Amino acid sequence: MKESGRKHGALAPCAACKLLRRRCAQDCVFAPYFPADEPQKFASVHKVFGASNVNKMLQELPEHQRRDAVSSMVYEANARVRDPVYGCVGAISSLQQQINSLQTQLAVAQAEVVHMRMREFTSSSNTGAMDMAVNQDNMGESLWSC
Amino acid sequence: MKESGRKHGALAPCAACKLLRRRCAQDCVFAPYFPADEPQKFASVHKVFGASNVNKMLQELPEHQRRDAVSSMVYEANARVRDPVYGCVGAISSLQQQINSLQTQLAVAQAEVVHMRMREFTSSSNTGAMDMAVNQDNMGESLWSC
Repeated sequence: MKESGRKHGALAPCAACKLLRRRCAQDCVFAPYFPADEPQKFASVHKVFGASNVNKMLQELPEHQRRDAVSSMVYEANARVRDPVYGCVGAISSLQQQINSLQTQLAVAQAEVVHMRMREFTSSSNTGAMDMAVNQDNMGESLWSC
Repeated sequence: MKESGRKHGALAPCAACKLLRRRCAQDCVFAPYFPADEPQKFASVHKVFGASNVNKMLQELPEHQRRDAVSSMVYEANARVRDPVYGCVGAISSLQQQINSLQTQLAVAQAEVVHMRMREFTSSSNTGAMDMAVNQDNMGESLWSC
């Protein structure tokens, strides 16, 4: 597992403990995910969720899920900092609009395919009928030529 | 503006003040958005963002944007309670997958339309050539009949 720039032994504080001005313990819950060289990551989640909530949420998860949880919290927090009214719900709403638009375009294209297949089918049926008619004419001609 | 079930004068506490066990002031920032009869809304945002962060975020916004901000925070908080690892970032990821799938289906359908148009065009060009040939035959016939 990556030690995230943390110097064990020297106890250089992680970004979280540095911001919270507290001693960074060997088993600090933040240290693996908030390295000292990326202070903005913790600053965002601290501003939006609060350090104690982040701590609690991490403690409630098994270790193998914590990295993903931190990534999603950082994403959410950054979205809320950028857009304090809608946060990442704004992104959800815009993706849903995009889905609606794509579904409409897809329905139009699929309807066009069906329409063209029908026309192609009708036209090939007519050609078949014409071919039959031509064959009947040829039969007539061959009868006259007898 | 809806008073959200709050009884002015009687000072019945809003859901936030009730949960935080504090006096609900006449100008309480939570009261218009967290009515006493919907305690779960505040419980979720309190658990995920923390009451003081929600308070701060609301104070930093003009009043006409606060209702939307509360709705998006409640949505985000509920998503995080349901899915503590991915929260509403899980929804974003699933919507993005849906968009990728729709874009692929749309590209296939549009390619089929183009392909069918090309075939239709080629077939109508051939029919045109056949028509010309038929017309030339007719001309031949009419010459003989003269």
